[in-house]
Amino acid sequence: MATETQAKEKLTIQQKQLENRGRLLVKCPDKPGIVSALSTFLHNHDSNIMESSQYSSDPENGTFFIRVEYHCDELLAKSEQMEKDFKEIASNYSMQYEFAYPNERKRSAIFVSKEPHCLMELLWEWQNGDLDTDIVVVISNHEDARPIVEAVGIPFHHIPANKDIRQQVEAEQIRLMEEYEVDLLILARYMQILTPDFVNHFENRIINIHHSFLPAFIGAGPYERAFERGVKLIGATSHYVTNNLDEGPIIEQDVERVDHRDDVAELKKIGRLIERRVLVRAVKWHLENRIIVEGNKTILFH
Amino acid sequence: MATETQAKEKLTIQQKQLENRGRLLVKCPDKPGIVSALSTFLHNHDSNIMESSQYSSDPENGTFFIRVEYHCDELLAKSEQMEKDFKEIASNYSMQYEFAYPNERKRSAIFVSKEPHCLMELLWEWQNGDLDTDIVVVISNHEDARPIVEAVGIPFHHIPANKDIRQQVEAEQIRLMEEYEVDLLILARYMQILTPDFVNHFENRIINIHHSFLPAFIGAGPYERAFERGVKLIGATSHYVTNNLDEGPIIEQDVERVDHRDDVAELKKIGRLIERRVLVRAVKWHLENRIIVEGNKTILFH
Amino acid sequence: MATETQAKEKLTIQQKQLENRGRLLVKCPDKPGIVSALSTFLHNHDSNIMESSQYSSDPENGTFFIRVEYHCDELLAKSEQMEKDFKEIASNYSMQYEFAYPNERKRSAIFVSKEPHCLMELLWEWQNGDLDTDIVVVISNHEDARPIVEAVGIPFHHIPANKDIRQQVEAEQIRLMEEYEVDLLILARYMQILTPDFVNHFENRIINIHHSFLPAFIGAGPYERAFERGVKLIGATSHYVTNNLDEGPIIEQDVERVDHRDDVAELKKIGRLIERRVLVRAVKWHLENRIIVEGNKTILFH
Amino acid sequence: MATETQAKEKLTIQQKQLENRGRLLVKCPDKPGIVSALSTFLHNHDSNIMESSQYSSDPENGTFFIRVEYHCDELLAKSEQMEKDFKEIASNYSMQYEFAYPNERKRSAIFVSKEPHCLMELLWEWQNGDLDTDIVVVISNHEDARPIVEAVGIPFHHIPANKDIRQQVEAEQIRLMEEYEVDLLILARYMQILTPDFVNHFENRIINIHHSFLPAFIGAGPYERAFERGVKLIGATSHYVTNNLDEGPIIEQDVERVDHRDDVAELKKIGRLIERRVLVRAVKWHLENRIIVEGNKTILFH
Repeated sequence: MATETQAKEKLTIQQKQLENRGRLLVKCPDKPGIVSALSTFLHNHDSNIMESSQYSSDPENGTFFIRVEYHCDELLAKSEQMEKDFKEIASNYSMQYEFAYPNERKRSAIFVSKEPHCLMELLWEWQNGDLDTDIVVVISNHEDARPIVEAVGIPFHHIPANKDIRQQVEAEQIRLMEEYEVDLLILARYMQILTPDFVNHFENRIINIHHSFLPAFIGAGPYERAFERGVKLIGATSHYVTNNLDEGPIIEQDVERVDHRDDVAELKKIGRLIERRVLVRAVKWHLENRIIVEGNKTILFH
Repeated sequence: MATETQAKEKLTIQQKQLENRGRLLVKCPDKPGIVSALSTFLHNHDSNIMESSQYSSDPENGTFFIRVEYHCDELLAKSEQMEKDFKEIASNYSMQYEFAYPNERKRSAIFVSKEPHCLMELLWEWQNGDLDTDIVVVISNHEDARPIVEAVGIPFHHIPANKDIRQQVEAEQIRLMEEYEVDLLILARYMQILTPDFVNHFENRIINIHHSFLPAFIGAGPYERAFERGVKLIGATSHYVTNNLDEGPIIEQDVERVDHRDDVAELKKIGRLIERRVLVRAVKWHLENRIIVEGNKTILFH
Repeated sequence: MATETQAKEKLTIQQKQLENRGRLLVKCPDKPGIVSALSTFLHNHDSNIMESSQYSSDPENGTFFIRVEYHCDELLAKSEQMEKDFKEIASNYSMQYEFAYPNERKRSAIFVSKEPHCLMELLWEWQNGDLDTDIVVVISNHEDARPIVEAVGIPFHHIPANKDIRQQVEAEQIRLMEEYEVDLLILARYMQILTPDFVNHFENRIINIHHSFLPAFIGAGPYERAFERGVKLIGATSHYVTNNLDEGPIIEQDVERVDHRDDVAELKKIGRLIERRVLVRAVKWHLENRIIVEGNKTILFH
Repeated sequence: MATETQAKEKLTIQQKQLENRGRLLVKCPDKPGIVSALSTFLHNHDSNIMESSQYSSDPENGTFFIRVEYHCDELLAKSEQMEKDFKEIASNYSMQYEFAYPNERKRSAIFVSKEPHCLMELLWEWQNGDLDTDIVVVISNHEDARPIVEAVGIPFHHIPANKDIRQQVEAEQIRLMEEYEVDLLILARYMQILTPDFVNHFENRIINIHHSFLPAFIGAGPYERAFERGVKLIGATSHYVTNNLDEGPIIEQDVERVDHRDDVAELKKIGRLIERRVLVRAVKWHLENRIIVEGNKTILFH
C-alpha cells in the first residue's frame, strides 16, 4: 500500500497544475445580466473560463446559481485584489458567493465505527491521488480501524462513545477538529448520533452515508427492514448532516438489484459496494466545490 | 396498429408450440427427497423437465418452493390423470401446488384512469405477441382511453367513480369481471382505492403499478414528494394489491437518475418510462407463473 | 390513440410558451473573453440566459463550444436584427454558429422497413407532446406500417427498395424529402444502405438506430453475432449517418443484461426495448439543439 | 489492513459451515429422466438439495447442464463412496461431471503488472472473507505491488518479462504455479501475452480482465480507442483465457456512462471501478463452481 508520502507526492503534482485555477460559486436572485457581469469581470481580471454551469430555480423571480472554474496566470498574486474588486458586483446583484482555490487543499477528518469498508475506499482513492484533500485525522469509537489508518501514516484517535457520555465525547471531537483545522467531516459508517450543537459547528460540512435509498428506511436497521419488506433493489444515500436524522440534503444515491434469495447478510455485502461508491462520489463533488445547498436540496454542477 | 385479429393470430402460433407444455408450482415444508419425488413423478408421466428453479427459505425447517416447466407429448390428453396421480405426493409432502398450462391463456382486465401510458404499453406488448394473455376488457372511470382501446377491438366500459359511490361502482366492476371471466386484473394507473371486499375477490390476482420506489412515498403525489425531498433517483414499483395501501408483495422495481433541474413535470415524464416497463415485467412474470407469494413477499423464478 | 389533431394541439400550447425562446450554438477557437462577449451581446439585446453549457476541447489552443438558451420578450420581432448584429462578434472570434427558435418546429421524416417498434415509439412520444417536431411523412420499403401511420393522419409512402434500383429509389426519396421540406430524417430500423450521394444531401441530419453496442457488431446480424459471442450485455446505438457504415458520430448508447438462456429471438425482444429508448433520446436531443458534431464525435449539452 | 491470519480465521469459520456441502456439475446429452436420476441418487445418499439450476441448449437433442448444491451430514466421510457410486449414472447418461467441495478451498495465484487496482480489490474482498480461496502467491513483472502484497503476508515474486525472454519467464511461472499448487490463475491487469503452451497448462483456469466491452476494442489501448470513437458507455470484460487474444469465453461484463468531457485519463479512472467489480464477480463465480464452459461461451448458474 502506498504510504502517505507517496499519496502526497501525487497530489502535489496535481496541485502545480491547479495553482492558477480558481472557482467561483454564486447564488443570487435571478435577473438579466448576471452572466454578462460575471464573465466580463473575469475577463477584465485576465481570467479565462474553463468550465461554467448554471441553474435557475425559476426564470421569473427565481434564484440563480452558477459555478465557474477559471484559469488566471499568477492567480496567487492576483486573487486578493480580484476578491476585493468582486464586492461591487456581488453587492449589485445581492450575491452570496464563494471563491475557492483548488491548490489550497481542504483538510478532512473521517469518523468510523466498526465496519471499515467506507473508510478503506476513501483511503484507497486518496492514495491513488483521486481524492483531492488532506486526510488529517481518523476518529473512531472502536479500535478496529487503527492498524489500517496508522499503516498509511494518518493519526488515529480512539474516543469510546455512547449515549450517556455524548457531551464529553463531542467536546473532545470538536477539540480535535479544531486542533487539526478540519474543513470537512466524513461519517464513513459512524454509527453514533451527533447532537445539534455538534452539527451546527459544521453546517453543510458533514457528509454522511446512510445505508438505504432515502427516504425509504430512515433510521436503524435498513437492510433488515429492506429484507422484511421484500424490495427488489437496495440502495445507499450520501447527504449533508442536519439535525433531522437522515433528512439532510441528498448529494448522491445509487441502487443494486437483489432478489428473494438474498438474506440480510447478503444484502449487507451488496450494500457495502453501493455505500463505498456513493460516499466517495459525494466527497469528491464536495471537494471540487460542485455542490450548492439550497433549502433541503443540493444543486450539483457536473 | 395491428388489430386484435392480428394479435390473436400471433398468439395462436405461440400457443401451438406451448400446447404440450405444463408448469407445476409447489410450496411445502422443506425436507429431503422432494426434488427426487417430483422429478421421478414427472419422468414416470412421460414428462421432460425444460426449466426448473427452486428456493428454500431455510435448509433447516424452512419452506421449499419450486417451479418446474415440463414438456409432455399429448399433454392435453394426459394432464387430468397426471393431476389426479399427483395428489398422493402432494399429500405426503403437505404441498400447496398449482398446475398451469400455458396454452390455456389467462384472461386479463385492465383498469385505467386518465393517464394512458401504462395501458398503451400493455396493448403494445400484447399486439406484438409478447404478452401471453387475452385482454378481454378495459374499464375506466374516464372516457379518455376509449378510442385507444376500441381501436384494437377490446370492449371498453366507462364506470365513473368517486368515494361516495364506491360500493355500487365495485359491484358493477365485479359483475363485469365475472361476465368476462377475468383471471388477472391489472391496475394500469387506476387512481381509485379499492375496498377490502373487492380486493378479497381477487387475492394475489390484482397487480398495481405505484409511481414511486416503495416503501418511499407511499400514497398520493409521489413525484411531488420526490421533488420536495430532492432525491437523485426516482422509481416505480409493481406489486400485488392487498388491503394495506401500497404495502402488498413487491414484484418488480426500477429507477432512473434525475437531478436538480428536473421539475415535477419532468419527473413525471421520466417516471412514465419506468412505470411502463416495471408494470409490463410484473404482468409477464405473473402470466408465466413465475411468481409465488409468500407472506408479504414474492419468490420470483427467472 | 390520439389523432394528429390532438398531438398538434398539445404541441401548439408548448409552442406558445416557447415563442420567446432562442437558442444559440457556437463553435470557435478557444480564447479569453468569448463568454463575456456572448453574454454581454445577449444582455444588450434584452435577452436573459435561461440555460448555458460550454465545453473546451483543450484550454490551450483548443476548440470552444457553447449552447445558450435565452428568453427575449417579443423575440419574433427582434430576432432578425439580433442575428444581423451578431455577425460582428462571430467574425471577431471566427465563430461557426447557429440561431435556433424552438417555436419554428423542425419537420421530420421517418424511414422504416418491417419492424415497427421504433416507429411506434416515436409516434407515441409525438402523440404525447413529448417530441417537439412535425412528423410530416413516413416512407417504407414495405406496406406493413401503413395502417399504423395513416391511423394518426401522417402521409405514408411505399417505395419498394433493393440494391439494383437504389438510384431511382433514392431519387424518389429525395424528391419527397424536398416536397415535404424535411429537416430531419430518422431511420427507425430502415434496413437499406444509403448511397454517399443521399447521405451528403442530409449531412448531420440523418439519425440511425443500430441494434448493437457500437463499435461491437458493426453491420448485419448483430443479435445473431452477440449470441454467438456469448456477451453478457447487449446494446443499441443511435448515431448520425455518414458514408462509413455504422461509423458515424455516436449520439447515445444503452445496454441491458442478458444471459446464456437468451436465444436470438429473446435477444431481439430485449433489444427492441433498448432500441426504442436510445433512438427517442437521440431524436429529442437533436430537436432541442443539444448536439454539436465535432469530427466524428458528438458534444452533447444536457 | 487485516493480516493474512485474520482473513484465514474468517474463512475458517465459513469453512466449518460449508464442510457438509457438496456441489455437483453435470453436462450431458439432454434426454428424459436426468433430473430424476440425479435427485434420486442424492436422496439415496442422504443428501438434501440446497440449490439447483439447470439449462438445456435445446430440448430436442440439445445439451443438458445442471449445478446442484447439496447438504450431507458427515459428507467428508461419505464423499468417496458417493463419487464411486455415481459412476454408473454418469455412464448411463454419458455425463461429463465434477464433484466440488467448498471446504477444500481452491488455491489462487494473481499475476499483476503496474496498475494495482484489480489486485487491491481482490485482496480487499479476500480480507473481508468474501473471496473463498487461498491466495497463495502474487507474481509481477514489476516491483510496484510488492509492499501491498507482502503487507498481507502473501509471497510476492518479481519475474521481469518481455517478448524476447517469454519462454524462460513462463517456465519460471509454471514452476511457481506447481510449487504453490495453484488451481486458479487470475490476471489482474497483467499486461503480457501468454503463449499457447502456457495457456494449455491451465485450460479454463485462467481468468483475465480486459478493459473494454468485448468484442469492442480487442487488443491494446482500449480506453484510447474508446475515446477516439466517442462512445457514450465504456466497459470491462472478464473471460477465460484461450489462445485467441481477448476471444475466450466471457464470464461477466459491465459498463458505465461517460461523456464528451471525459478524456482518456478520466476514462481510465472510471474504467478502474468497472474492472474491479467485473473481475471480482467472475472470480467469485468460478470459486463457487457456478460456471460451465461450453464451446466459447459460459453457462452461469446464479
